Amino acid sequence: MASIARASLLASGRLRLRLPTHPRSFLLTPPVRAPSRIRMLSSADVEAPVLLQQSRWRRFLQTLGRVTLITILTAGGSFYYITYKDRTPGPQQPFDPDKKTIVVLGSGWGATSLLKSLDNEDYNVVVISPRNYFLFTPLLPSVAIGTLDARSIIQPTRYITRHKKRVVHVYEAEAQEVDPINKTVTFKGKNFSYTSPIKGQQDTGSIKYDYLVYAVGAETQTFNIPGVKEHSCFMKELKDAEKLRTTVMDCIESAAMNSDNPNAGADVDRLLHMVVVGGGPTGIELSGELHDFVHDDLKNWYPELADKVRVTLIEALPNVLPMFSKQLIQYTESTFKENKINILTRTKVKEIKENSVIVQNEKGEFVEMPFGVLVWAAGNVGRDITRNLMGKIGAAQSNPRGLLVDDFLQLKGAEGIYAIGDCAATSYAPTAQVASQQGNYLARQFVQIARKENLEAKLKHLRESLDTAPEAIESTVKQINKASKLRPFHYSHQGSLAYIGSEKAIADLPFLNGNFASGGVATFLFWRSAYVSTLFSLRNRTLVVSDWLKVKLFGRDTSRD
Amino acid sequence: MASIARASLLASGRLRLRLPTHPRSFLLTPPVRAPSRIRMLSSADVEAPVLLQQSRWRRFLQTLGRVTLITILTAGGSFYYITYKDRTPGPQQPFDPDKKTIVVLGSGWGATSLLKSLDNEDYNVVVISPRNYFLFTPLLPSVAIGTLDARSIIQPTRYITRHKKRVVHVYEAEAQEVDPINKTVTFKGKNFSYTSPIKGQQDTGSIKYDYLVYAVGAETQTFNIPGVKEHSCFMKELKDAEKLRTTVMDCIESAAMNSDNPNAGADVDRLLHMVVVGGGPTGIELSGELHDFVHDDLKNWYPELADKVRVTLIEALPNVLPMFSKQLIQYTESTFKENKINILTRTKVKEIKENSVIVQNEKGEFVEMPFGVLVWAAGNVGRDITRNLMGKIGAAQSNPRGLLVDDFLQLKGAEGIYAIGDCAATSYAPTAQVASQQGNYLARQFVQIARKENLEAKLKHLRESLDTAPEAIESTVKQINKASKLRPFHYSHQGSLAYIGSEKAIADLPFLNGNFASGGVATFLFWRSAYVSTLFSLRNRTLVVSDWLKVKLFGRDTSRD
Repeated sequence: MASIARASLLASGRLRLRLPTHPRSFLLTPPVRAPSRIRMLSSADVEAPVLLQQSRWRRFLQTLGRVTLITILTAGGSFYYITYKDRTPGPQQPFDPDKKTIVVLGSGWGATSLLKSLDNEDYNVVVISPRNYFLFTPLLPSVAIGTLDARSIIQPTRYITRHKKRVVHVYEAEAQEVDPINKTVTFKGKNFSYTSPIKGQQDTGSIKYDYLVYAVGAETQTFNIPGVKEHSCFMKELKDAEKLRTTVMDCIESAAMNSDNPNAGADVDRLLHMVVVGGGPTGIELSGELHDFVHDDLKNWYPELADKVRVTLIEALPNVLPMFSKQLIQYTESTFKENKINILTRTKVKEIKENSVIVQNEKGEFVEMPFGVLVWAAGNVGRDITRNLMGKIGAAQSNPRGLLVDDFLQLKGAEGIYAIGDCAATSYAPTAQVASQQGNYLARQFVQIARKENLEAKLKHLRESLDTAPEAIESTVKQINKASKLRPFHYSHQGSLAYIGSEKAIADLPFLNGNFASGGVATFLFWRSAYVSTLFSLRNRTLVVSDWLKVKLFGRDTSRD
Repeated sequence: MASIARASLLASGRLRLRLPTHPRSFLLTPPVRAPSRIRMLSSADVEAPVLLQQSRWRRFLQTLGRVTLITILTAGGSFYYITYKDRTPGPQQPFDPDKKTIVVLGSGWGATSLLKSLDNEDYNVVVISPRNYFLFTPLLPSVAIGTLDARSIIQPTRYITRHKKRVVHVYEAEAQEVDPINKTVTFKGKNFSYTSPIKGQQDTGSIKYDYLVYAVGAETQTFNIPGVKEHSCFMKELKDAEKLRTTVMDCIESAAMNSDNPNAGADVDRLLHMVVVGGGPTGIELSGELHDFVHDDLKNWYPELADKVRVTLIEALPNVLPMFSKQLIQYTESTFKENKINILTRTKVKEIKENSVIVQNEKGEFVEMPFGVLVWAAGNVGRDITRNLMGKIGAAQSNPRGLLVDDFLQLKGAEGIYAIGDCAATSYAPTAQVASQQGNYLARQFVQIARKENLEAKLKHLRESLDTAPEAIESTVKQINKASKLRPFHYSHQGSLAYIGSEKAIADLPFLNGNFASGGVATFLFWRSAYVSTLFSLRNRTLVVSDWLKVKLFGRDTSRD
C-alpha cells in the first residue's frame, strides 16, 4: 500500500515539491548517501547558474508578494478598527454641580488644542462658538483653489468633546458679552438660513463661569482703507475660501464668454488679473496655488485663456515673508519670477474700487490696476467683544493690539479669565503654533489646579477628623505647596513653513542655536508631511491625503458650484 | 572544482531549492534510480500529510501574494495612464464657418449625453447653460445628507467638450429667448457674486443656429400652494442640497442648545421634525438617507437628540412610488415602519408656514404639523422661456405639460429645433433615463444628417462635372435615399431603482416580457453598482466610491459649514 502511495506521489509530481519543503528529509539521510544524490543530479549542473537566478528571482517575488499581501490586510484591519473606535464614542459622566465650570469661547487653534488635551474629570466644560467645527487654517488657501475639499480640513468640535470623560456642552452660538465682575457670559444662537421662535425667546442665554478661556481669535484688519470690505475676498473663514473659488471661476467663465469678442480684450485681461494683498504666508501660498491652478488645470480646460491670467502680489513692507531668513525670501522671489507672479513690495493700497485697486508704488506714484478678483490677506484686529471686554476692565487693558496677559496667560485686571491665541497681545506672532501651545499649557494648568483643590479639600477633612496623624497633614501640606507652584507659559518655536507654488516649499527650522533654512521640492514633501501630522485627527489626515491624490489623478475641479 | 561547488551548494542548502525548481533534473535520471530516491526519503514519509498541507498552504499564500502584488501594480499603472489621458486633452480643430451650427441649451442629462456621443467633426457646437457642469441628479439626496460630497457627482461640461474633435464653445449663461423664425437664441451671462462692467455691456449675446437642441429641463412644481417657495427646501440643484444640509444642521444645533432647557421641549420636538413632501424616488431616498444620518451619525455625536428626531413623508396619492410594482411599494412601506419613518398617503399640503405645514389628511380633516425643516420634492413644471417659446409657436404647441415633439424629437410647429428631457411633453416619465437616451438618439441623428448633406454636395459636384459615369450618380442617389431614412426615437426602459434607507434598496427591472422585482441589501449593492456604472466619467466613479468608503470609515460630517 505504502509503496503504491509513494509511487503515485512520485507520478503526481508532489514528491518533487515535497522534497525541499522539509529539510529534515535530507538531514535524516546518512551522509554517505549524499554523493549518490549529487551524482544523480549531475546532468542538471550545467544549468546551475540559470536555476540559481530563477530561484532567487522567484524567492524575491514570493517574499515581496507575501509582504504586500500581509501589510495590506493588517493595515486595513487596524485602520478600520481605529476609525470605528473614533466614530463610536461611549457614554460620558454627566455634569456635576459640585465641580467648577470652565467656559471656552471659540473653536479655533487655542480652544481646540485645549479641549483635546484637557482632562475634564474635575470640571464641567461648556464650549461656545459660532462655528461648530475646528478649521485647519494653514490649508485654507488650498481649499480656495480647489486642491483640497472644504470638509477635509474641518473637524466637528463634538468629535473631540464626545471622547472626553465628562459630558461637554457645545453651543453653536456667538458670545455677546463677558461680565468679569459677575463672571458670566451672555451668548446668542447664530441665526442662520431660517428663523425659529425659540431662537427669538431662548437662544440668548447667559452662563456663569468659574474659569473662562477666552479664545475668540481676531478679525481681518482693513486699516480703514475704503472699499476693502465691499470689493475684496478675505481668507480667514471657510466661507471666504468658497467665495474666492466661486469668484475666480466667475472671472474665468465671463472671460471665456468674451474671449472671441475682439472689443472685449481689455476687459478679458482685467477679469484674468488676480491680485493678492499681503506678503505673509497666506498671501504667498495663495499666489502659489493660483499659479498651480492656472498651470495645471486651466491650460487643459481653458487653453484660450490660460496664458492671459496674471497674478500680482502686493506688499507694503520692503519684502515678503518677514519671518523667514534672507535666502528663503530671495528663493521665493526668484521662484515667483519663474512662475510669472508679479511681486510689488513697498507698495501701499490706497483704495479698492469695484474692479480696480489704487496703489502707491515705491516711487510714491499713484497707480490704478484693474482686477477680476482681489484677495485681502493682511493682518488681524481685535473683535468688538474683545474691545468691549477691555473697556470693562479699564486701565489694566490699555494695549490696542489685544488683551494683555501675565506669564500664566491670565488676563490682567480680571480674575479667572485666560486669554489665548490671536486675541491676546503677547510677544509672540499671532500664529496657529502659539495658540495651540497655549491651549496645551492651559489644559495642564487646569489639571494642576484641580489637583491642588482636591488636596485642600483632603486637608480640611484631615484637620476636622480628630484621630489624624500630624505626618499625614504635613505631607498633604507639602503636596499642596508643590501643586501651588505653577510654571509660566513658555513658547518653543517649531519653525516656519510656506508653500510657494509649482511643488516647491520653504522651511525655516530652529536647529541647535542657529536655524536650518531649506527650499525646493524636497521641502514641499516635508511641508506636506508636517501639515498632515499636525492635523488633529486620523480622519482629516486621510481626507487630506486622499484629496492630494485626487488632484494628482484628476486635477482640480473647474465647475462653478 | 565542480565537486567543491556542488558540496558548497549542498552545504548552503541551495541544492534543496534547486531540486524541485527544475523538473528535468529528475526526468534525465534513469528510472531505475527512482526507488533509491524514495528509499532515501522513507524517514520523511511519516510526516507526509503534514508536509503536503504545509506545501499546499504555502503555495496558496505565495500565489495569492504574487497575484495581489501584480494586480496592484498593473491596475495602479493603467489607472494613472487613463486619468492622465482624461485630464490632458489635445488641441482641437477650430470653428469652421462653412459647417452648420448646433446650439445646445442646457447641461443636464439630455444635453450631456448628446455632447458625449456626438461626433462634431461636421458641426460647430455651442453650449449655453447657467451651470458649467453636469449634475448627476439621482445622487442629489445623498449629497443633501452628506453621504456624498457635492463635487463627486458633478462634472464640468468642458471635461467632455474638450475631448471633441472640433472646438465646442461653452457659455455659462442663461438663455433668455428663442426666436424660431430667425433661428436665433439670445442669452445673458449669469451675474453671480460680483458684477463686472463687461457683463453689463457684452454679456447679453445673441447667436444664430441651424439646429437647436432644447434641453433646458424644468422647474419645481409648487401648485401655487402658499408658502412653498418661502419656507421649504427643494431638491433639484446642488445649491438645494447644500441648503438642506445646512438647515438640518441648524435645526440640530438649535435643538442641542435647548436640549437641557425644560421649557423648550415642544420646540425641540419641532426642530427635530423633518418633513418630506412627495413620495417619488427623490422623496423616498431622501427620507431613507435622513434615517441613516440620524441612526449612524447623530446617535454618536448628539446622543441626547438622536431619539427625538422624527421623519414624516407626505404623499397626495394613495401610495408612494407609483412607478414600482405592488410588492416593492409594500416592502418600502414596511421598511419605513421599521425605521420609524411616518408615511402619510392621501394627504394634501394646503399651506406651508414658517415653522408648520397645514395638510388635509385622508379623512378630509385639516391638521397643522410643526416642523424644523421641510423638503419639497413634488413634480415639475415648464420654465418661463419654454412657455415663451410655446407662445411664439402658437397653435402647434398647446400642451400645458410641455413642448410637443414628433417621433424624431423635432419640435412641432418649428423647424430645426429638437426638444429633449423634462421640457418635452412625451409619453415617457420625466426621468434621467429618457433624457439621456434622447440625447444619444439625437447624436446619431446629427451624424446621419451630416452624412446625407455631404452626399448631396458630392452628388451636386458629380452632376456638375461632365465626365461622370451615370453609375456613380446612381449609387450616390441610393446612398442619399438610405441616409434620408431616419429611424424614429424608441425608448427602452432599463428599470427603476430606489434607495430606501438602512442599506436597503428596491429594483424593478424589465425581464423577458414580465418584470423582475427585488428589494433588500443585495439590491442595495446592485443599486450602488448600477449608479456607479451610470456615472459619466472614471473621475466621478472614483470620487463616489471613495466617498462611500469615507462614510463607512469616518461617518458623515456633522459640521455646519
